[in-house]
Amino acid sequence: MKKIRAAIVGYGNIGKFALEAIEAAPDFELAGVIRRNGAEGKPTELNNYPVVKNIKELENVDVAILATPTRSVEKYAKEILAMGINTVDSFDIHTGIVELRRSLDKAAKEGGAVSIISAGWDPGSDSVVRTLMQSLAPKGITYTNFGPGMSMGHSVCCKAIEGVKDALSMTIPVGTGIHRRMVYIEVEEGYDFEKIAATIKADPYFVHDETHVMKVNSVDELKDMGHGVNLVRKGVSGKTQNQLFSFDMKINNPALTSQVLVNVARASMRQQPGCYTMIEIPVIDLLPGDKEELIAHLV
Amino acid sequence: MKKIRAAIVGYGNIGKFALEAIEAAPDFELAGVIRRNGAEGKPTELNNYPVVKNIKELENVDVAILATPTRSVEKYAKEILAMGINTVDSFDIHTGIVELRRSLDKAAKEGGAVSIISAGWDPGSDSVVRTLMQSLAPKGITYTNFGPGMSMGHSVCCKAIEGVKDALSMTIPVGTGIHRRMVYIEVEEGYDFEKIAATIKADPYFVHDETHVMKVNSVDELKDMGHGVNLVRKGVSGKTQNQLFSFDMKINNPALTSQVLVNVARASMRQQPGCYTMIEIPVIDLLPGDKEELIAHLV
Repeated sequence: MKKIRAAIVGYGNIGKFALEAIEAAPDFELAGVIRRNGAEGKPTELNNYPVVKNIKELENVDVAILATPTRSVEKYAKEILAMGINTVDSFDIHTGIVELRRSLDKAAKEGGAVSIISAGWDPGSDSVVRTLMQSLAPKGITYTNFGPGMSMGHSVCCKAIEGVKDALSMTIPVGTGIHRRMVYIEVEEGYDFEKIAATIKADPYFVHDETHVMKVNSVDELKDMGHGVNLVRKGVSGKTQNQLFSFDMKINNPALTSQVLVNVARASMRQQPGCYTMIEIPVIDLLPGDKEELIAHLV
Repeated sequence: MKKIRAAIVGYGNIGKFALEAIEAAPDFELAGVIRRNGAEGKPTELNNYPVVKNIKELENVDVAILATPTRSVEKYAKEILAMGINTVDSFDIHTGIVELRRSLDKAAKEGGAVSIISAGWDPGSDSVVRTLMQSLAPKGITYTNFGPGMSMGHSVCCKAIEGVKDALSMTIPVGTGIHRRMVYIEVEEGYDFEKIAATIKADPYFVHDETHVMKVNSVDELKDMGHGVNLVRKGVSGKTQNQLFSFDMKINNPALTSQVLVNVARASMRQQPGCYTMIEIPVIDLLPGDKEELIAHLV
């Protein structure tokens, strides 16, 4: 069987876990990794793989896994789709998804390639569950409760404040889609903790949520990549009220994101040129193996 | 907007709830109901609809919802697909799904129509969740825990035993896909309860499960159409162990089955001719409305 040749673009947290997911997948091989510094200071786990500065230096790439910051996704995807190479990403700005899909749909069709966007766990696999739940009880309310887990966006926001040496913002679910923010900060010498705490609480990122700010000696000692979600829906099937659904997970965050990226990289090989979100892809396409065997085991 | 014209074939429990789901759906209209006795003794809720003995008597049917016994699905589907009308069903014999799919795929392609099979909640929406979970942690074990809820198959099995006037078999989940059977029976005069209980426990339907048989005065008083499921998976994403997933629901059984049937009836209008299970259909196709709006709200 010909393996799917994937390239990893960007080698931070997600890139590292994507390498593991590719190595664990029976139907993939790694074409190489694209890093800003190329092979310079190449980590040992990449010893057996090409590490380059530009995807053009790699051979026969079927699909590029974009493990870049969310804001760089569109730029990289357009360049790579134009080469006729599929792209997948975990773009996570919910309000920007429709626009990104339009832009990459055009680029993908022009390149004769496939792009699957916003394919992490939320947006991503959670979106599939939300859509399914909505269909099972068309009238009703779905709540997405995140955590407990680290919020990258909120942590970065705190670190940008003058006098903050390091920061960690934890998202704590308190139900009905409402979240508490627990913020742990290291304060630089000569700065006033109370003033920093007030600045954080007044920031648009935090102002609408119950926020607690705490001073700690080491933020690093608190860091854990575990995360979770609880998706609940109570609604009406036909004319029958009180249908109850819930989906829960407790997971290593970057490990799950990277697994989903590899799954959609596989699915990208089975779609017509264009750009898709995960709810537009049959779930069977996420898995390797024979279709009838999968149906026999999973349906 | 042109509405999807659906016919309901069979008017038992599922057929009645399918009527409600069609009436609640903004994009459907009921073309009519097919019953063995036609309009004879037509129930009042069908007053405004054609009720006939054969689907040929109805006009412009887009899709037929097969609310027949599982064992009649193939026969009805073949006849209706040959007329170029889509079919959907909730065929629930897990070991027969691949074969039914092959047979109806041929019939659907010949008729230029679409068939979506095994589309209830299990098999059906649970299959979508099982497939998604498998993809999120490719190594690991999924357990499907049913209930508490009534098992039709097990209840019918008990009713077939001589001396049993009425019977109800409840499926109770005890974890890791193992189930306890709680059987409530009304015994006919002159029959020995202990002998009947022993016969039930020795039946292939029950012999492998912990089974308790109880004598009651009225089985009917115990009947409740509520059911539930708990799907759990613990597995490995990439090389990261202990990823935990669970999906739970507590639902009215025929109401959910019928809602899923209407959802796949809608989805059938968006597929190429052929036969599909739910894991082969993008979840977005289950919902009415504009694609970009759905993506903006659900992804």
